[in-house]
Amino acid sequence: MAAQSVVSTSAHTTSASTSADTSHPVDLGPAAALSCRECGHRVPLGPVFACQECFGPLEIAYDFSAYEPEELRRTIESGPANIWRYAPLLPVPADVATKPNLNPGWTKLVKADHLARELGVTGGLYVKDDSGNPTHSFKDRVVAQALEAARAFGFTTLSCSSTGNLAGAVGAAAARAGLRSCVFIPHDLEQGKVVMAAIYGGDLVGIEGTYDDVNRFCSELIGDPAGEGWGFVNVNLRPYYAEGSKTLAYEIAEQLGWRLPDQIVVPVASGSQLTKIDKGLRELIELGLVEDRPYRIFGAQAEGCSPVSVAFKAGHDVVRPQKPDTIAKSLAIGNPADGPYVLDIARCTGGAVEDVTDTQIVDAIRLLARTEGIFAETAGGVTVGVTRKLIDSGALDPTKTTVVLNTGDGLKTLDAVAGTGATATIRPNLDSFKASGLV
Amino acid sequence: MAAQSVVSTSAHTTSASTSADTSHPVDLGPAAALSCRECGHRVPLGPVFACQECFGPLEIAYDFSAYEPEELRRTIESGPANIWRYAPLLPVPADVATKPNLNPGWTKLVKADHLARELGVTGGLYVKDDSGNPTHSFKDRVVAQALEAARAFGFTTLSCSSTGNLAGAVGAAAARAGLRSCVFIPHDLEQGKVVMAAIYGGDLVGIEGTYDDVNRFCSELIGDPAGEGWGFVNVNLRPYYAEGSKTLAYEIAEQLGWRLPDQIVVPVASGSQLTKIDKGLRELIELGLVEDRPYRIFGAQAEGCSPVSVAFKAGHDVVRPQKPDTIAKSLAIGNPADGPYVLDIARCTGGAVEDVTDTQIVDAIRLLARTEGIFAETAGGVTVGVTRKLIDSGALDPTKTTVVLNTGDGLKTLDAVAGTGATATIRPNLDSFKASGLV
Ligand SMILES: [Zn+2]
Ligand SMILES: [Zn+2]
Repeated sequence: MAAQSVVSTSAHTTSASTSADTSHPVDLGPAAALSCRECGHRVPLGPVFACQECFGPLEIAYDFSAYEPEELRRTIESGPANIWRYAPLLPVPADVATKPNLNPGWTKLVKADHLARELGVTGGLYVKDDSGNPTHSFKDRVVAQALEAARAFGFTTLSCSSTGNLAGAVGAAAARAGLRSCVFIPHDLEQGKVVMAAIYGGDLVGIEGTYDDVNRFCSELIGDPAGEGWGFVNVNLRPYYAEGSKTLAYEIAEQLGWRLPDQIVVPVASGSQLTKIDKGLRELIELGLVEDRPYRIFGAQAEGCSPVSVAFKAGHDVVRPQKPDTIAKSLAIGNPADGPYVLDIARCTGGAVEDVTDTQIVDAIRLLARTEGIFAETAGGVTVGVTRKLIDSGALDPTKTTVVLNTGDGLKTLDAVAGTGATATIRPNLDSFKASGLV
Repeated sequence: MAAQSVVSTSAHTTSASTSADTSHPVDLGPAAALSCRECGHRVPLGPVFACQECFGPLEIAYDFSAYEPEELRRTIESGPANIWRYAPLLPVPADVATKPNLNPGWTKLVKADHLARELGVTGGLYVKDDSGNPTHSFKDRVVAQALEAARAFGFTTLSCSSTGNLAGAVGAAAARAGLRSCVFIPHDLEQGKVVMAAIYGGDLVGIEGTYDDVNRFCSELIGDPAGEGWGFVNVNLRPYYAEGSKTLAYEIAEQLGWRLPDQIVVPVASGSQLTKIDKGLRELIELGLVEDRPYRIFGAQAEGCSPVSVAFKAGHDVVRPQKPDTIAKSLAIGNPADGPYVLDIARCTGGAVEDVTDTQIVDAIRLLARTEGIFAETAGGVTVGVTRKLIDSGALDPTKTTVVLNTGDGLKTLDAVAGTGATATIRPNLDSFKASGLV
């Protein structure tokens, strides 16, 4: 039981620090400190996630002062075809690309002309398709940042609580990096998800309880000596982890030819992704990499888990928690930590937060597949469905450049479209085929 | 019933041509003609696949005479991050990248240092991971070529017979291109595969019969007026389709810094992929893009479908058909059309053809996932398992640069590793965790 740099006295002290080895200097590139989003209090880089002064969320503060726009753009453009082209803007060491990791990102920005025609979008419609990541969801982007923080802090085990996508992303990243992983899941997860989480050979622990029980257990473990040397990607490494979503903003702007989109539709689970996309777009403006033009950010939820959408439409500043009941499991966070920030960004940029029913989600998955050959996870059905709804209501301007996020792969949520089947069944001869009405 | 350019009188005439519209000139870039692999007889580009003289397979003959190495390399390097960077070497029009298609390829070549250590490879081990393609298998590469041929010949329906991966790749490509698709499958396929084939909204026809019955039906349809205007990617468009596998060779060499690997391990189903990888490597030498050095090509099969491996080990030139029985369904072709060519290439280059059991396949899937964070389809288990076996037998030199292909995604063959589960199940408290032996 070695001493910890900041001793946590309670399992629920959210400012707990659990560094394993702080004797060597921390090199996380341009990351200069952690800064409280609420009160601005700054602390040195470390495995902490909540402000000691006000319990607000800590986020990374950068020193970008040395950058010159043209040179930075050239550095990025000559970088690798993955998120590490943006290493100068991320909390990672400069040599990050030389270390073993999954190298996610630089996924396709698909010009979706057929979908645009169906939705009546004339200003240019794009799908940012993050199903192309190594474990087929945007989680690879955030886990890759947490991994670098874990290495910097000397952690030897990568961990998380998860109901699906995240477990696989952590297991795969740790395997490639040569770190141990130990991931916690509810014990009664579907077999397919268990396989995806377990295949990478790390420890996978089923917990007899709900996802809330799993989370509560992880908080306890972080405060206990048994959790020493453990980096929980979405808890004590959360400030680093969350920054990975900025790369979606960078890629979209670069892929549009260093130009901001007019409108962007983002799924809302905890809300972190949307806030970081906004942060990324603002950084590009401040760094002089794109022209400063207004952009509007729209949040998308499933009706069965729509706390932020409900608050937006009611004009509230606070988000009232819901008990999730939707097929969009990867968005089913009933008490989203960043909900108030999402409301703020949607309102300030002239966007909105909207939700769609499970039926509309499935319809939208089919629509995207039929028009563009992209098979999206349910979360992609949510963003495409919400885009359609926002166009119909006039909230989204169809004459403007619009980017819709697909954050995961349909192969991971096959159950949602299980009813999809053959158009016809025939006997193996031409007469039977001709009688089918298909010719 | 419009006249066809070459009238097929029998459903089994393999030289049948079914062009829908040959009135416009065919522009397929450097593709100059079709040439018989057996007798060298040349015919103009068209939707034909077998020689009228000897029934040998037709393949694309190119005119590369105008290319100068340095300029060609620059053109490629400044091209898009997908297979179209190699458009000058493929049977596609020069403006192919501007047309709507799935833009597959430029998948990761992963330096697999952990796997190398486990296998004792010291000369550099790489996994070419084609699970990163849009529908998560290498089929996207070949279908993309067939799509361009279909457009060039004026076909309006894209079709195939399939038991899985190909159906999804064709459905997705047709959807993006705005073509109709009609895909034929055995009516009793697993529900998951049916969903993946049907989700893109094309016609999906279940045929009451075996996969052989499906194939026989497709041959009939090609010879019938009902099949007019239909491009069957792996039948009447096969010469174009097959060329897509050359891009694997190009990418591997370019990603190694315009250098040939010493050894490459390729899965063998029909054998087409292996022969085209060899063709691609030879083209790079002839074009002066890489140094002319010897390379060895190894074929990998599952023991439960190992007609080529058996012939190789017995020293035979002919391949005796087998009835497949293996978990590696995407390689389960019992009578591989290109088997003799595979034998020839393996022998001429100093390679080999080897097979592994289903148990070894599953072990290899786990090994690759655990060491590199790559979750491979069963076909990837076959290549990794065969690599291990070839090293153990001394057939593969561990001191040489070796590339192993993973042609598909583990998410598509989850059943093969269904037994994978949690390391431990605990109650949601620290005592229970500490008792698990994991800390
Ligand atoms: Zn504070
Ligand atoms: Zn011939």
